[in-house]
Amino acid sequence: VPENYPDRGVLDLRLQPVTHAGSRFAALADQHATDAAAAAAANDEDGRFPVELFDAMKASGFLSATVPMEFGGMGLSSVRDLGVGVSRLARGDGSVALACTMHLGFGLIGRRLLADARTSGNRQLEENIGGLLGLLGSGAIAMANFTEPGTDVRHPNVTATRVDGGWSISGRKTFSTLSEIADVFFVSLRVDTDRGPVTRSAFVPRGTPGQHILSNWDALGMRASGSHDVIYDDCVVPDHYVLPGGDPWGEESALTLRIASVGQFPLVPVFLGIAEQASSLAHAAARARLAAGGPRAESGRGGLEHLLGENEIDLAAGRALVDHTGRLLDAHLTADDAATLTLADLRRLHAAFQCSKQAVNRLAITIVDRSMSIVGGSAYQRRHPMARLYRDVRAGPLMQPHSPVEANQYIARVLAE
Amino acid sequence: VPENYPDRGVLDLRLQPVTHAGSRFAALADQHATDAAAAAAANDEDGRFPVELFDAMKASGFLSATVPMEFGGMGLSSVRDLGVGVSRLARGDGSVALACTMHLGFGLIGRRLLADARTSGNRQLEENIGGLLGLLGSGAIAMANFTEPGTDVRHPNVTATRVDGGWSISGRKTFSTLSEIADVFFVSLRVDTDRGPVTRSAFVPRGTPGQHILSNWDALGMRASGSHDVIYDDCVVPDHYVLPGGDPWGEESALTLRIASVGQFPLVPVFLGIAEQASSLAHAAARARLAAGGPRAESGRGGLEHLLGENEIDLAAGRALVDHTGRLLDAHLTADDAATLTLADLRRLHAAFQCSKQAVNRLAITIVDRSMSIVGGSAYQRRHPMARLYRDVRAGPLMQPHSPVEANQYIARVLAE
Amino acid sequence: VPENYPDRGVLDLRLQPVTHAGSRFAALADQHATDAAAAAAANDEDGRFPVELFDAMKASGFLSATVPMEFGGMGLSSVRDLGVGVSRLARGDGSVALACTMHLGFGLIGRRLLADARTSGNRQLEENIGGLLGLLGSGAIAMANFTEPGTDVRHPNVTATRVDGGWSISGRKTFSTLSEIADVFFVSLRVDTDRGPVTRSAFVPRGTPGQHILSNWDALGMRASGSHDVIYDDCVVPDHYVLPGGDPWGEESALTLRIASVGQFPLVPVFLGIAEQASSLAHAAARARLAAGGPRAESGRGGLEHLLGENEIDLAAGRALVDHTGRLLDAHLTADDAATLTLADLRRLHAAFQCSKQAVNRLAITIVDRSMSIVGGSAYQRRHPMARLYRDVRAGPLMQPHSPVEANQYIARVLAE
Amino acid sequence: VPENYPDRGVLDLRLQPVTHAGSRFAALADQHATDAAAAAAANDEDGRFPVELFDAMKASGFLSATVPMEFGGMGLSSVRDLGVGVSRLARGDGSVALACTMHLGFGLIGRRLLADARTSGNRQLEENIGGLLGLLGSGAIAMANFTEPGTDVRHPNVTATRVDGGWSISGRKTFSTLSEIADVFFVSLRVDTDRGPVTRSAFVPRGTPGQHILSNWDALGMRASGSHDVIYDDCVVPDHYVLPGGDPWGEESALTLRIASVGQFPLVPVFLGIAEQASSLAHAAARARLAAGGPRAESGRGGLEHLLGENEIDLAAGRALVDHTGRLLDAHLTADDAATLTLADLRRLHAAFQCSKQAVNRLAITIVDRSMSIVGGSAYQRRHPMARLYRDVRAGPLMQPHSPVEANQYIARVLAE
Repeated sequence: VPENYPDRGVLDLRLQPVTHAGSRFAALADQHATDAAAAAAANDEDGRFPVELFDAMKASGFLSATVPMEFGGMGLSSVRDLGVGVSRLARGDGSVALACTMHLGFGLIGRRLLADARTSGNRQLEENIGGLLGLLGSGAIAMANFTEPGTDVRHPNVTATRVDGGWSISGRKTFSTLSEIADVFFVSLRVDTDRGPVTRSAFVPRGTPGQHILSNWDALGMRASGSHDVIYDDCVVPDHYVLPGGDPWGEESALTLRIASVGQFPLVPVFLGIAEQASSLAHAAARARLAAGGPRAESGRGGLEHLLGENEIDLAAGRALVDHTGRLLDAHLTADDAATLTLADLRRLHAAFQCSKQAVNRLAITIVDRSMSIVGGSAYQRRHPMARLYRDVRAGPLMQPHSPVEANQYIARVLAE
Repeated sequence: VPENYPDRGVLDLRLQPVTHAGSRFAALADQHATDAAAAAAANDEDGRFPVELFDAMKASGFLSATVPMEFGGMGLSSVRDLGVGVSRLARGDGSVALACTMHLGFGLIGRRLLADARTSGNRQLEENIGGLLGLLGSGAIAMANFTEPGTDVRHPNVTATRVDGGWSISGRKTFSTLSEIADVFFVSLRVDTDRGPVTRSAFVPRGTPGQHILSNWDALGMRASGSHDVIYDDCVVPDHYVLPGGDPWGEESALTLRIASVGQFPLVPVFLGIAEQASSLAHAAARARLAAGGPRAESGRGGLEHLLGENEIDLAAGRALVDHTGRLLDAHLTADDAATLTLADLRRLHAAFQCSKQAVNRLAITIVDRSMSIVGGSAYQRRHPMARLYRDVRAGPLMQPHSPVEANQYIARVLAE
Repeated sequence: VPENYPDRGVLDLRLQPVTHAGSRFAALADQHATDAAAAAAANDEDGRFPVELFDAMKASGFLSATVPMEFGGMGLSSVRDLGVGVSRLARGDGSVALACTMHLGFGLIGRRLLADARTSGNRQLEENIGGLLGLLGSGAIAMANFTEPGTDVRHPNVTATRVDGGWSISGRKTFSTLSEIADVFFVSLRVDTDRGPVTRSAFVPRGTPGQHILSNWDALGMRASGSHDVIYDDCVVPDHYVLPGGDPWGEESALTLRIASVGQFPLVPVFLGIAEQASSLAHAAARARLAAGGPRAESGRGGLEHLLGENEIDLAAGRALVDHTGRLLDAHLTADDAATLTLADLRRLHAAFQCSKQAVNRLAITIVDRSMSIVGGSAYQRRHPMARLYRDVRAGPLMQPHSPVEANQYIARVLAE
Repeated sequence: VPENYPDRGVLDLRLQPVTHAGSRFAALADQHATDAAAAAAANDEDGRFPVELFDAMKASGFLSATVPMEFGGMGLSSVRDLGVGVSRLARGDGSVALACTMHLGFGLIGRRLLADARTSGNRQLEENIGGLLGLLGSGAIAMANFTEPGTDVRHPNVTATRVDGGWSISGRKTFSTLSEIADVFFVSLRVDTDRGPVTRSAFVPRGTPGQHILSNWDALGMRASGSHDVIYDDCVVPDHYVLPGGDPWGEESALTLRIASVGQFPLVPVFLGIAEQASSLAHAAARARLAAGGPRAESGRGGLEHLLGENEIDLAAGRALVDHTGRLLDAHLTADDAATLTLADLRRLHAAFQCSKQAVNRLAITIVDRSMSIVGGSAYQRRHPMARLYRDVRAGPLMQPHSPVEANQYIARVLAE
């Protein structure tokens, strides 16, 4: 992982952790990023999920970082610092960072739900959540299986039907990042009731009969993320694997908003990290061109300085957005003393996250595009790292829960409430 | 000062103070903003400096906020929180906020220089700086008189020449914000020596013979900021009013970099505050249009929601940049334990500030432009508040020390060092 | 009117006329632009309509250019070449060019309506249109009085009611450009019928009792355009001054689409001309800075070259859009053999014009903004020509018939038909 | 090739030919585009050059369109209409269109050189050029072999050295589009002379001993263009294959400027065509989403209409730039009576072309990016046509002769001359 300028303390706008657990996490992220970078080209070429990297991240404790210490984790509770580490890992390989975020959010959400259960004295829920955290602390991998073709996350069409002793799940999920190795799938469901359809969610252990993980992820970018389709075909789980509640189908609920904001915010720094890596490659190329001297250096200096300056200006905004939004979410969603929030409050926090997501997605795409111009024609070779970044970075605006097609409406309506 | 959405605690990305002094300062800023807003149209129309507002800000302690408590101030030491308050004031009137920033930085810089003097045991400097802080604490207004026509801040052409018992100053300064009421002018100078020209600076008390403050500020916007030209014509000050040192003319020095970063960073939130105010006006107009119903509401809903969403996305970035950059400067330039920094370090911090300045200037201009489209034709009336914001916001990119013409080169070269 | 580079034939993308009448018109535009430029600052300062410039444009034949030769005009029939000339005039003063466009379209539309009347054998209409063209050919000034506060052009609220021998008109129009000197006002009206409200339009001669032209134009920019409010208070006109037909209120009609496309297209080159003038000022400033040498030239060269290049790239697009759209409209709306068009066809042409309008408005605003940065701090003085361009150029997106709030929806829906 | 809206004559801003030969060429382009589209996915997948498509384009006369009729071609002499046809073909497959442009320019340049030779009475040159045109008329494929790694087109490092009866050529060319099937390679060379190095160029027939065409094109996009490296290793050609003249190495010459402007302008519509195709796919996806009804249609309508409108606005600019610039080049470079031009004139025309290139490259990238957001997640599948367009369109800014790094400086300096 090249650096675009020497580290003299933290005398610039690059993101630094602010918690102790965050510092440990970021340091591990830097280490794993080095290995991820070394393997990135080959994994991208083959569309191969890097199992051995995930084994190493399990072994180092990186993948259980967000699990509370009492359950064997690192106790990282700041979603901002989670984002800082994710951005570091993404400098090595965006696919790997993306896949990690799908799992790491569970620790933060579980921690919160556990505290709520303890506060409310719901012993059954406390036990269930504790069980999940225990699994995560001992190395299990969880993933959120929400996305389906032709609908949005609020309107799942994978159904759950009551059967003897449990529920039968049927339907198809797509973009199932981490499905290649996940031990637990957290699946959003539609349940038809007398009151109309409601949305529920269930934990499905890997290998439950009826679950079929297709090995069909073959995308433009993020090719090492193992985001296969998963088919559920009369897949039966016991009753207590299905979470209580049941919000009206199509409506935002407090739980889904919490999951979306805490669980998906770390996607934002994935794209920041990709942009930082692109900027580093551009710096190196510009330095080489200017150092070579001759007519190309002369004709390029003004343009290079302009474009490098633009990259830094855009990176400043991207870094600031991750910092500022991360602090907001930490203050209200992940901190120990985070306030009790209404649905309206949660929508406002979610809208803030969406602003950050849209802005960073755009900035990252712009930075990668500009960096490609700086590197020049060689960046267009299929095996040049820049070509991979160009493909990877474009995943951002397509990520759930709000694409550029819906985001502005959502933001405008929430703020007008 | 309208608000674009109801305040439910701090559940969004708007800037909040993080220090106690910052909270007091921000609360005062909100109050003064209300008065500033009420007078803004008339002051803009007449190009009139609002002396009475500044009297009120003196009386409330707002204008001595950055002076250490031992010298009678509020002890606000965070440049980030200074920025937060400045952005609040700018929602009322950008001109007033701009003028305040020119003075408020002196408290922060003085505090730092005093600490350095104490550390190094320089009693004379300690006494001088203490004297200045005492003056500021008792209500004196200071201003930085750096800008000249046809040159940049590193190459002043106002000269200081040795005379009996002091120095004689001659030349012309321009864009002298606050000159209408300043008690102390901090003037950058060129002194010709055997080693070639050097840059020095001097304090010139208002009313020193030979100082002529023209009442000629008549600009496109920021019309209430009193940014007249000041002519120095054989204006003699005693020896100890001229600061020691003397860096080679045209070179950045540690002192000027500190002053530029700490003293000018609060300019950035001025333009954020203007953008926030424009966004509020746009929200109000959009609400009214949609509430009116009928064909215009129907034909406008999609477009309005899109544009309002864009404003929020851009505001998120602007707010984040002020937060993130403010924290960086606090960690290294204003905190009590801020590190000893090399010239290279200071240049890196200054480049970070420049990234933030360029980004926020652009975002603010874009937000005001978009808000004008949302408000529609009425915004083009000369007396509509939106028309003033449109003129005021354009000052940003023209402010020292780096215009868009030079900023990218500066940033690129610093980061390549 | 400075030029940004020497004219060596037409070896660049600047717009050139392609018809003989267009060449005469453009040459006159260049001459009048010189006079307009000389008076622009004073007229802007005072918000004064330049009657003497319009007298000179009448005397030269410029203002009757679009009237067919048989009626005493220049026979300019190309709306593209009309646009070319308008852009030249706008380099001198955008206000003057804007005001002219409101009148010049009538010749083109009249010519077309006359041909239609002749083809269809409608002698009464032929006579009426011929009468109007005769008036225009002998120097009368016409203006379109369509805009009202709080509604859009398709939903006029100024009413016409049947009275003995004619119609009584009542209500308020706004942004009535040219009202200061217009001899004939073409007023859009709402008529309530048994079938519901319909839209009609009438010619109201200046001085008809009940017409009150307020002298209240006092805007951010375009201050010399005399765009006052006009009040109609039981203003009675004879029957044949009201055009036949009557489309359902709120629906686009063939006539209004023709008028909008042909009559308002020349607004687009107004903003191109303003941008060209801004670019010229920027070139001059950059040349001066580089020629002065010294540290500012050195630190600015790369940035200046970048920004000047950006201006040219944006100007290329703006010029191309006026050329390309003008040719499309000429081929279908103003050419002698222009096809018979359905309402759907006219909507498609109108959507094309809207694309051009939105694009050029944005480009012009961007070019003026960038040029201001190139010129630097002096451009922010109230009396600097750049400050006027900055205020004038912002009128573009607010002009009828589609603001940025509605334009995209209109374009998308037309193209989906 | 889907269309984004039904063709009702030419009532929109899409490009139409203006010459008879251009109409024939465009009609053939539409036909070949259909075949190219059908094969595009497979050729992209395999990085395979579609020899059979080129055979069909030879057979139809498409590939000899620019050859004068006296030499067996179609007599297409308008570079604008060449561009129109190229944009049509690019809707089918950008790679194929790109490859064709590299060959089709030779007819236009040859036609011009032949006219010059006849005017000046240079019989030898007339014969040589006539020979080349005869070859092209009978189906030969020519390509320009200019680009080398690590230098720009003005500073070739492939050398030519005098040998007995001719010249020996040695060095490496890269990005040699069409090299897979070209019969004649037009190679830029460096010749060291007593006066210093000069630039010359030579025709090298395919199969000349010492020429080695590597089959190594393996790029991010434009994968069917066969742009291999070509190595020249003591490759000897007879004397008259090397063009006379010899401009100082590193300086623009009249010949290279003509070749660059006429030969490379058709690259611009390649990227317009790609953007048009992306827009068509976006239209189809939006229609399907809205037609499906339900919550996604409701939540998406405003956003979709906004984004579709933006696409049309950007397409309008792109189409206008190709039209307007094409007309300029036709008036001065390819028309029969095109003026005798100085080097300064040619530089001005070339700068105009560069403005157009930069603008269209950016617009095309933006349109493809936006279209991808409209299509949504499915566009990120590797085999989705959108994913290919995303990779193909990024070639634009990297194409010779001016990347975004150098273009602005070039433009600014030419216009300041």
